[in-house]
Amino acid sequence: MKTYNYSELSSADIQKLVQRNVDPANEIRTIVEDVITNVQQHGDSALFDYALKFDKVELSKLYLEKAELEEIAKAISADQKAALETAYSNIYKFHQTQLKTEDKVETMPGVTCWRELRPIEKVGLYIPGGSAVLPSTFLMLGIPARIAGCHEIVVCSPPQKNGKVNAFIAYVALMLGIDKIYLVGGSQAVAAMAYGTASIPKVDKIFGPGNQFVTKAKTIIQSTTTTAIDMPAGPSEVLVIADETAIPSYIAADLLAQAEHGIDSQAVLVCTSADIAQKAIAEVEKQLPVLPRAEIAKLAIDNSYVVITSSLSEAITFSNQYAPEHLILATGSWEQITGSIINAGSVFLGNLTPESAGDYASGTNHTLPTSSYARAYSGVSVDSFVKKITFQHITREGINNIGHTVEVLAELEGLHAHRNAVSVRLSPPTP
Amino acid sequence: MKTYNYSELSSADIQKLVQRNVDPANEIRTIVEDVITNVQQHGDSALFDYALKFDKVELSKLYLEKAELEEIAKAISADQKAALETAYSNIYKFHQTQLKTEDKVETMPGVTCWRELRPIEKVGLYIPGGSAVLPSTFLMLGIPARIAGCHEIVVCSPPQKNGKVNAFIAYVALMLGIDKIYLVGGSQAVAAMAYGTASIPKVDKIFGPGNQFVTKAKTIIQSTTTTAIDMPAGPSEVLVIADETAIPSYIAADLLAQAEHGIDSQAVLVCTSADIAQKAIAEVEKQLPVLPRAEIAKLAIDNSYVVITSSLSEAITFSNQYAPEHLILATGSWEQITGSIINAGSVFLGNLTPESAGDYASGTNHTLPTSSYARAYSGVSVDSFVKKITFQHITREGINNIGHTVEVLAELEGLHAHRNAVSVRLSPPTP
Repeated sequence: MKTYNYSELSSADIQKLVQRNVDPANEIRTIVEDVITNVQQHGDSALFDYALKFDKVELSKLYLEKAELEEIAKAISADQKAALETAYSNIYKFHQTQLKTEDKVETMPGVTCWRELRPIEKVGLYIPGGSAVLPSTFLMLGIPARIAGCHEIVVCSPPQKNGKVNAFIAYVALMLGIDKIYLVGGSQAVAAMAYGTASIPKVDKIFGPGNQFVTKAKTIIQSTTTTAIDMPAGPSEVLVIADETAIPSYIAADLLAQAEHGIDSQAVLVCTSADIAQKAIAEVEKQLPVLPRAEIAKLAIDNSYVVITSSLSEAITFSNQYAPEHLILATGSWEQITGSIINAGSVFLGNLTPESAGDYASGTNHTLPTSSYARAYSGVSVDSFVKKITFQHITREGINNIGHTVEVLAELEGLHAHRNAVSVRLSPPTP
Repeated sequence: MKTYNYSELSSADIQKLVQRNVDPANEIRTIVEDVITNVQQHGDSALFDYALKFDKVELSKLYLEKAELEEIAKAISADQKAALETAYSNIYKFHQTQLKTEDKVETMPGVTCWRELRPIEKVGLYIPGGSAVLPSTFLMLGIPARIAGCHEIVVCSPPQKNGKVNAFIAYVALMLGIDKIYLVGGSQAVAAMAYGTASIPKVDKIFGPGNQFVTKAKTIIQSTTTTAIDMPAGPSEVLVIADETAIPSYIAADLLAQAEHGIDSQAVLVCTSADIAQKAIAEVEKQLPVLPRAEIAKLAIDNSYVVITSSLSEAITFSNQYAPEHLILATGSWEQITGSIINAGSVFLGNLTPESAGDYASGTNHTLPTSSYARAYSGVSVDSFVKKITFQHITREGINNIGHTVEVLAELEGLHAHRNAVSVRLSPPTP
């Protein structure tokens, strides 16, 4: 891993180091637009065609129902079930606290304002399948959707060669009380959920990660329809801040956990100790070759780097500029520095908190802003599945109190009908 | 206004009535893309050119500073100042309650998760100027930005012919403690805040309404850079639900307040009483001609309609399908029906709560989802100016409790390095 000394970096160098390519897939725009148009125009028939073309399977119907999911889910071991149940329970426990009612506020006598939460009625969850099957993502999206109370949860996942989904996806669906999975993947799944087809309901918001085609489709849908998306997505990344109290073998394991995701993943180490950094790099070289996904991890590690800083505070400054999706504080003194973290998706505190705990089971959500989007976006939570509607009620006393203010402001903006809507209420009614 | 009987409408008819044109401005995409590229490449120099071309003013510098704003603000009357202060105070009071700390949750012994709020560091506010000068929008965006604690608030507003901003905008800037206003309007302002220029800082998120060029620029920026936007925007709209307890002159005033915004505004009346509806339409015809913006309002009213329903419950069903930006419940029995409202931006309860109160001074935010975006989006609030970062800390007891679960789940997803990041921590450290 290439190593830089923070003190020798110019601000242009830092700018270059923290830069990610946010739109590597712009050349695929036309391909994805064609898929979207085709699904919009030909609905289910286009989806059957794409299953044959992309998933290499001839489907007789576009979904699996409860009895089929139950049959598929039988393949899971007791140990696997227990692990999924524990993850479910922790994720549920944490996300449940995010659903809060808010107090009413009397802003002036007779004028009362408040917000009420309402679930987004119809949500679409895209669960990647095929080579990377991610039941954990299904939990991370399905649990907050259930807690929010979404009326309809539409799930799309690409069919395997046998025309089914994998047993873990089936099991998670049943845990979540979801009785149907649509066998549709890629950008065609996003298009189907945005426009609706005979089989697949149109949804109000689409969630979930995916390859560059899925991501591009989500971006296009967001800017051309009223269907919202959870957030833009890029390759996964981790930034580890370590000091002399960090354990090199832990650091290496965390960097590699990120690196195995894909060749475009990034694993950055920012370390106050050149000695620890060197030992961590040596550990990476030791742990890497034995990994089943060593080839992928090696390319991602080649794409990563180390920055040596003179203090944790300098390390945090760099990290805030990078705005990592995952931030690990591999230091005994994490309590002193969490307050200075400004930009990050999810933060892992101390030497015994690996990112993979959060990826699966600590309780936090693993759908997080990548590519420096953490500057402005939060990860998925129950918030992502609700709207907050504002309400206001004004009494006779209230309209008398607020009326003149509204009249003056409407007048100065030149909006006389706005003014009049108050004035008529200040005069006696003329029914 | 064209009147429909709900009972005679097919679901296709309803679908057509609630449909808004979400992307009327797609043909301007190329124009806006050119502006963005030009600003990206030529920075300030492009902005000076656009001021001359679009705002018809030759600027010597791109901003006004505190002393200049103070000079300009002197033009405001005491009555206007008092009205702005009252609005400020109410908006502040309501939004302040939205900034909440959250509790820590121990999801299993030794595993603790929580969320902390962080302000988005740099935000950009676009305040329309020229013909429609909207100091109220400046309050609605500036106050939550201040409450959130955003470090840098960049404000762009188009210059008037005299190369300045209007006195109300200047005054609101000073109320908010904002010492600089950039004299840039249109899509060039959005581009400048997204890419940064020598004068104008690059921001993390852009807020604010604008014409179709501004809106298109925001959409493009959102899908091509890491700069976020508040929400997509379309023409303003109101849906009034009225029963026999409603006052026709109030209904008419509320419909017209919406109609005067622009010829593409929509004002829909859903009424359980044909008699009240008829009287309200007669009142619209009476109140309309005397409005200064009568021509605009007339075109918008021609574009609007009335639906007669047999019950409030039917009215709410229609409204939820429409998903209005503003919803007025002109009925004495609003308390029985607020629970059934699913899709709306902001709701005005009872006969004495006009929308214009919320537009200016009740305390709620007037930056709201239009065009049925209320199905999935909330209006602007302090939430829009913060990120929620998740944190987790695991103790030795915690990693022993959660470790096996993570190992099993990582294994079943085929991610061995993820598994290993836990396994190394379950064994004794090898420093």
